[in-house]
Amino acid sequence: MNPKNMAEIGSLKDCIGEIVTVLGWIDAIRSHGKIGFLVVRDGTGLAQGVILKEEVSQDLWDSHESMTLECSVALTGEVREEPRAPGGFEIGVNDLEMLGSSSDYPIQPKEHGVEFLLDHRHLWLRSSRQRAGLRVRHEVEQAIHDYFYERGFVRIDSPILTGAIGESAGSLFSTDYFGEEAYLAQTGQLYVEAACPAFRKVYCFGPTFRAEKSKTRRHLTEFWMIEPEVAFADSEANMQLQEDFVRYIVKRILERCQEQLEVLERDLRDLELVSEPFERISYTDAVNLLRRKGSSIEWGDDLGAPDEQQLMEEFGRPLFVYEYPKSVKAFYMKQNPDDDKTVLCNDLLVPGFGEIIGGSQREDDLDLLLGRIREEKLPEEAYSWYLDLRRYGSFVHSGFGLGLERTVGWITGSRHIRELIPFPRMMNRLSP
Amino acid sequence: MNPKNMAEIGSLKDCIGEIVTVLGWIDAIRSHGKIGFLVVRDGTGLAQGVILKEEVSQDLWDSHESMTLECSVALTGEVREEPRAPGGFEIGVNDLEMLGSSSDYPIQPKEHGVEFLLDHRHLWLRSSRQRAGLRVRHEVEQAIHDYFYERGFVRIDSPILTGAIGESAGSLFSTDYFGEEAYLAQTGQLYVEAACPAFRKVYCFGPTFRAEKSKTRRHLTEFWMIEPEVAFADSEANMQLQEDFVRYIVKRILERCQEQLEVLERDLRDLELVSEPFERISYTDAVNLLRRKGSSIEWGDDLGAPDEQQLMEEFGRPLFVYEYPKSVKAFYMKQNPDDDKTVLCNDLLVPGFGEIIGGSQREDDLDLLLGRIREEKLPEEAYSWYLDLRRYGSFVHSGFGLGLERTVGWITGSRHIRELIPFPRMMNRLSP
Repeated sequence: MNPKNMAEIGSLKDCIGEIVTVLGWIDAIRSHGKIGFLVVRDGTGLAQGVILKEEVSQDLWDSHESMTLECSVALTGEVREEPRAPGGFEIGVNDLEMLGSSSDYPIQPKEHGVEFLLDHRHLWLRSSRQRAGLRVRHEVEQAIHDYFYERGFVRIDSPILTGAIGESAGSLFSTDYFGEEAYLAQTGQLYVEAACPAFRKVYCFGPTFRAEKSKTRRHLTEFWMIEPEVAFADSEANMQLQEDFVRYIVKRILERCQEQLEVLERDLRDLELVSEPFERISYTDAVNLLRRKGSSIEWGDDLGAPDEQQLMEEFGRPLFVYEYPKSVKAFYMKQNPDDDKTVLCNDLLVPGFGEIIGGSQREDDLDLLLGRIREEKLPEEAYSWYLDLRRYGSFVHSGFGLGLERTVGWITGSRHIRELIPFPRMMNRLSP
Repeated sequence: MNPKNMAEIGSLKDCIGEIVTVLGWIDAIRSHGKIGFLVVRDGTGLAQGVILKEEVSQDLWDSHESMTLECSVALTGEVREEPRAPGGFEIGVNDLEMLGSSSDYPIQPKEHGVEFLLDHRHLWLRSSRQRAGLRVRHEVEQAIHDYFYERGFVRIDSPILTGAIGESAGSLFSTDYFGEEAYLAQTGQLYVEAACPAFRKVYCFGPTFRAEKSKTRRHLTEFWMIEPEVAFADSEANMQLQEDFVRYIVKRILERCQEQLEVLERDLRDLELVSEPFERISYTDAVNLLRRKGSSIEWGDDLGAPDEQQLMEEFGRPLFVYEYPKSVKAFYMKQNPDDDKTVLCNDLLVPGFGEIIGGSQREDDLDLLLGRIREEKLPEEAYSWYLDLRRYGSFVHSGFGLGLERTVGWITGSRHIRELIPFPRMMNRLSP
């Protein structure tokens, strides 16, 4: 690099009146006769370069005319405030250097089909809505770590490769592990439970995998999940933690990502509702309510997406649905002492999106847990270490899993979560 | 739970003189005739319960005598400061309830073989050295996120399942992906490079996989790696970033994990050296130095662990070795414009441990990169999207990968990194 006065666009407000050089990519080009406009993006912001034909050399003018979308450039000139320019700053260009050319850039300012865009995901990331969505994701992730760090939780990275299995054997990816069969983890929960007696409050946060042939707007085969687990916390304390946690995340995004929410044209009203208490309804009451509204759901059925949507419309704010039938939930959830057909669990539904959290108190009784493992015909041997947690100082404990992409999808008001992970993996998509 | 005055042990300093109930696990038991001592651990700290036979009921005394290691208890009594007690606090017990029994707890206060301990990893986590090591890991992870967040980097989660391959085809785990073959990612680097034109400074942080039949103390098949990537940064800027980053992490651990470093009996002198400038030597000079010291290494050989160790002894502080031969490094590293046999890369070696970072400037010339892909006989089609980054606005950029477990191993002074990940995966170990 030359020893010029280099500046990041995000810091131009400190350079008004100075001659600076910015490095970046051409985000837009306009020309009005003898004035050329080059919008440059450097990942920290946008700035508009202005070139006046009468004030620059013929070479520089020609060079500007040869610029194409997404070529990389070094642009030098005086910084001026200009509220009408994208980014709010203008640079009166007196030097311009093409660093990397870009002929026939595939993504042009026109409508492209989503499959085309996903095929070009490595370039699509540069677009303004994609940048906005992924920056919100970044802020949500940091908010998650900060929330737990500030509250004394210890992060426990659970393994991806595992001999035991997770929630449903039918949807596992498997690999040969030096002659053994290994599975890609669907959850880290069983592992964070083991860490409770070491640290009391723990969490894991990493990718999880489901080999589901599902093509809905809320499913990915690889997605990130945050799973806190707390010793000596019951189902009630678990729901309180979820409410406080979700409120913290949304509040932080409203504070720090206004610019991105604006790009995404997010209506903020239902996000602002999270500052009020969340609603609660038992599964049984929810079924009765849905039936009164004309649904044909029967007690014992799981809630489908349309049921969730109807409940959301009914309540209009985040809603806990708790104590589902044992038969539709995972083996590790604690049997309700007041009703042996239900378990001490909850889902959290949010308006305009649906489920973002599933949580439960865990079965801490060795015999009941063993009974459930046998009922579900799970491989008992693989769960032997998990049963040890009930053999040696068993304890009341609860936890939950929050889906990162779903949460960011809800917060950004996106229809489909595939745009909220940098490189989405779906049934028919393994690249780029 | 009863409506008692519940307290976490970590907060007992605020409860001196109060009657509180703590919930936790029995960490140690001692008895001196008519005085019983129960050390309770709740994940936030240790406290010593004292039971005087003459002052408690026979039932309570009997109950205390039935306690065994790692049973979970509710212990109630008055809090007193007691500098001689583990944790610094004593509770004069007047109520004691067994919550979960623990007969024949497998890990007793005696020497166990490491394979036995790894088989019981789900319980071994409760031991003091394991807690200390994993808490340092937790602090390092938060420090990493804070460092990049504060400096405007955007986190980009790179995919684990990938159709393209990473560094060396021989050591990949593969899985059936709805009829296609997918591989578990060895690096996220190629993906974070794609995000540079969107955000300029980015990083990924997640699990990576190597199906290597290697059994050294520095290898795991699943390990966590942090990979920053910076647009418009050359190899020199890259080394400066690494130095600043490592210094930040170590400084933070020295500030916030004194207690853990003490448990681990870490000699802090070489850690404190990170505040001084790191040393630098070119690969070529390193080979000459090693040969003068009697090594039989030839120019072109990669540095082995004994070579690294000798260099560490020579310099005694963190050392960059830069500009390795092209032939021993990955295809994506930028060819040295002054010497076409070497590439613009560096490793960072640290005393007492060895390599914790590998970094490089990336090849940004389309033809040179394509040439390297062909030379290495890599599947060109799989890298087509990666080559697009050189077709559309190519740019100078650099980045590096820091191995989390190696870094924590170095900082904690551990001989083997397997204890610094909650559930290690090695060639012969897939469970628990």
